[in-house]
Amino acid sequence: MRIVVTGAAGFIASNLIPRLLDAGHEVVGIDDFFLGKRAYVEALLQRSATRASGPGFRFEEHDLLDRDFVRTLFEGFRPERVWHLAANSDISYGTKYTDFDLKGGTLVTYAVLEAMRLCGTREIVFSSSGAIYGEPTVHPTPEDYGPLFPISLYAASKLACEGLIAAYAHNYGMQARMYRFGNIVGPNPTHGVIHDFVLRLNEDPTRLRILGDGSQAKPYVHVDDCLDGMELGIARGTGPLTCFNLAVADQTSVHEIADGVMRAMGIDPAKVAVEFTGGSRGWKGDVPFVNLDSSRIRALGWSPKYTSGQAVKQATTEAIAVLLKK
Amino acid sequence: MRIVVTGAAGFIASNLIPRLLDAGHEVVGIDDFFLGKRAYVEALLQRSATRASGPGFRFEEHDLLDRDFVRTLFEGFRPERVWHLAANSDISYGTKYTDFDLKGGTLVTYAVLEAMRLCGTREIVFSSSGAIYGEPTVHPTPEDYGPLFPISLYAASKLACEGLIAAYAHNYGMQARMYRFGNIVGPNPTHGVIHDFVLRLNEDPTRLRILGDGSQAKPYVHVDDCLDGMELGIARGTGPLTCFNLAVADQTSVHEIADGVMRAMGIDPAKVAVEFTGGSRGWKGDVPFVNLDSSRIRALGWSPKYTSGQAVKQATTEAIAVLLKK
Repeated sequence: MRIVVTGAAGFIASNLIPRLLDAGHEVVGIDDFFLGKRAYVEALLQRSATRASGPGFRFEEHDLLDRDFVRTLFEGFRPERVWHLAANSDISYGTKYTDFDLKGGTLVTYAVLEAMRLCGTREIVFSSSGAIYGEPTVHPTPEDYGPLFPISLYAASKLACEGLIAAYAHNYGMQARMYRFGNIVGPNPTHGVIHDFVLRLNEDPTRLRILGDGSQAKPYVHVDDCLDGMELGIARGTGPLTCFNLAVADQTSVHEIADGVMRAMGIDPAKVAVEFTGGSRGWKGDVPFVNLDSSRIRALGWSPKYTSGQAVKQATTEAIAVLLKK
Repeated sequence: MRIVVTGAAGFIASNLIPRLLDAGHEVVGIDDFFLGKRAYVEALLQRSATRASGPGFRFEEHDLLDRDFVRTLFEGFRPERVWHLAANSDISYGTKYTDFDLKGGTLVTYAVLEAMRLCGTREIVFSSSGAIYGEPTVHPTPEDYGPLFPISLYAASKLACEGLIAAYAHNYGMQARMYRFGNIVGPNPTHGVIHDFVLRLNEDPTRLRILGDGSQAKPYVHVDDCLDGMELGIARGTGPLTCFNLAVADQTSVHEIADGVMRAMGIDPAKVAVEFTGGSRGWKGDVPFVNLDSSRIRALGWSPKYTSGQAVKQATTEAIAVLLKK
């Protein structure tokens, strides 16, 4: 199958693309390296070049806001499916630069959907977020929870993207699988709490600044489990439009993550001066407690290998390996 | 109070602004006349000029997509509240020109919110739509219904606007009242089924083309009742962010409306060749049956004067008076 992956230099795509190549798909990846990393793409190109079946991966460095570029690429490649993973993943950045998620989320998604419509691409896989629930009053939160009042511009953009995808699916005969993630962790991080703690402690192992009061607790899903779930939703989901929560049942606190990162880096937590920025949120727009009901994807057979605690532990090892070359 | 009204030449604004002026508010209206009508603004200016208390209405002809203009206007006028009513109201147009609602809905709303944020305006009143529920499986549909999968780009844009407003309210200390309308009817129409039937039958009283099969049924709310409800939500709603469905309990079919318009225009329905475009929807993206649960606004004291049937009858008389000067 001919597949386009947006955000191809990002965390999830760099874990996805080897799977797609192994399954024999032909993949074009797009990224502008705003958040994505060149090293991840180079590894993919190298892997693709050494395939027995010939190179199946092509990479385009470009801004997805350029609608003409996206359309022309789609016209040439004629993709049958798009994994639309490109997005800002820094929520607090989007609160400061208020057009950031609007452009990098909503308008980019519009550009992708337009290219699909004009070139006859029928299938889209979209990385949404549990953040669209805002601060829900129901836990665990099911997919049909309402109202959807996001508290960050990041989440507002994800909601806008879901709405666009739903309308395109209805009006132009597309099929969409949308996934509302908890926090995803694993190899090749580009951002996030584990990534940040590893880099900060590597720079100065005597102190660590923690955003909020450290009690924020989220379900961390290992990217392998995440991709298993996404592929299941594609293979077994029905109907033109479905969304799935993708999260494990337990949560890990920022406190626990900090402790685990220190230990994994061989640092005695007792010797680290931990400083808290304070307040229950990591940043304005942060949802401090997340618990998503994932029974819909579990009913299709999803059975994550890692609990949240195990995923964090595994991802900490993987992040240290990638970021510190250890 | 200093109030900005967007979409000031439109149907709802032209009914709202006299109320605001009568209540002593100072109003700046903005419109680009894409859908709005000059005659409605001229009537408002005339009314304002003859007030005993001095003119309270200023009008600016401008495109709200021009963020610099909006911000400069807000910097000068320092509005305390915005009634953000500007929007495309032609759903099928937005299906054909796919960036139409994105620009005229989502991006315009962003421009308004940014101007509010930068100039310290705290309150926004927003005209959303029951269309954000897509094709709900629960009737009557309550405000906390999910998932929100709109089937038109118009509704996708309304959903995107709600998300932006929610995020701005949370992050920048604003207060928002959002209203999810059924169909609103009354004097000064700029579009809609009654408006269209009156103009078509005036041109040719021997035939009438009806979109769909005519069985589409919606709750029609008279604009006087609609504005009563919106003002109630402002006066009695609590919390920084609330949305209210605004619809009556009964529905009127397109068939019934056609029949009523003919009779009101003195045309014998038996002598009109009615042609149906066919299908259950009026157009792609049309939701053929709407039934919104308005118990939340009713609990604040909303008690609409007109049923759907009465609202249609009243609005038909009013539309004929305005459109045909009868």
